[in-house]
Amino acid sequence: MTAEENNYRHILLATDFGNHAESIGTRATAMAKQHGARLSLIHVVDYVPTDLPGDLIELPQLKIEDHLVESARERLEEFASLINADYTNLWIEIGSTRHEILRIAEEEDVDLIVLGSHGRSGLALLLGSTANGVLHGAPCDVLAVRVTESSTQDP
Amino acid sequence: MTAEENNYRHILLATDFGNHAESIGTRATAMAKQHGARLSLIHVVDYVPTDLPGDLIELPQLKIEDHLVESARERLEEFASLINADYTNLWIEIGSTRHEILRIAEEEDVDLIVLGSHGRSGLALLLGSTANGVLHGAPCDVLAVRVTESSTQDP
Repeated sequence: MTAEENNYRHILLATDFGNHAESIGTRATAMAKQHGARLSLIHVVDYVPTDLPGDLIELPQLKIEDHLVESARERLEEFASLINADYTNLWIEIGSTRHEILRIAEEEDVDLIVLGSHGRSGLALLLGSTANGVLHGAPCDVLAVRVTESSTQDP
Repeated sequence: MTAEENNYRHILLATDFGNHAESIGTRATAMAKQHGARLSLIHVVDYVPTDLPGDLIELPQLKIEDHLVESARERLEEFASLINADYTNLWIEIGSTRHEILRIAEEEDVDLIVLGSHGRSGLALLLGSTANGVLHGAPCDVLAVRVTESSTQDP
């Protein structure tokens, strides 16, 4: 098998816009270039209905979700621009971060997920709730980009 | 930053010679070519003094270790040849798999560790004994190459 045959074809960058999102994103962009792969981005809105910003408290449920998705989409577009991502798709999903990342990876024939080694959308989320440390359900390879312990706080 | 500046420079492939070692190794070899990186291989002999092969039971401790290291080295050389690895170093270490992989990664300025997503020398070993799923102590990025659940048995 040549190196070219072993190239990744579709890389999915999972981001939570955390402190080290840019360096993780830069790695994903570089990997996509090196492999001639498509690059897509996903951000999962961790939306809990009881946890509303004050100015949204009067809105009906669906409007709140629309608002959160729309503002996350703008943020993801800005982020894609920041890391010079020549992306195929941007996904904003609402729900379980782990479930949504794995669902998109499966549905979109992703062969490499890139994420941080720590943090809310980091490697831990793919490990499930048990302690045996296997990548439960990951349908593909996973690149955990090292970020330091001190970067696990949300921005 | 260009893609070239973001290349990995020294990739460390950790192998336990498990069922899917070849496909994990092929990925590491391809990554090294794509990045113009040096590639080194490590196998940790999981040696417990009380668990001796019958024909070694009469040998003094140091001779047993020499024997295990030497036979593992031959196996690792054969494996490197199988995956067409143009390697810089082969390391055979005795002790804790996790500790030895991280030690070599640190000492040798490794910037990417490649291992399987399951199994004895897989991703789980980097997660430590706690359940929070962070890469305790990993000094660099980690690529977990997907292997299926059924491949976690040793050969």
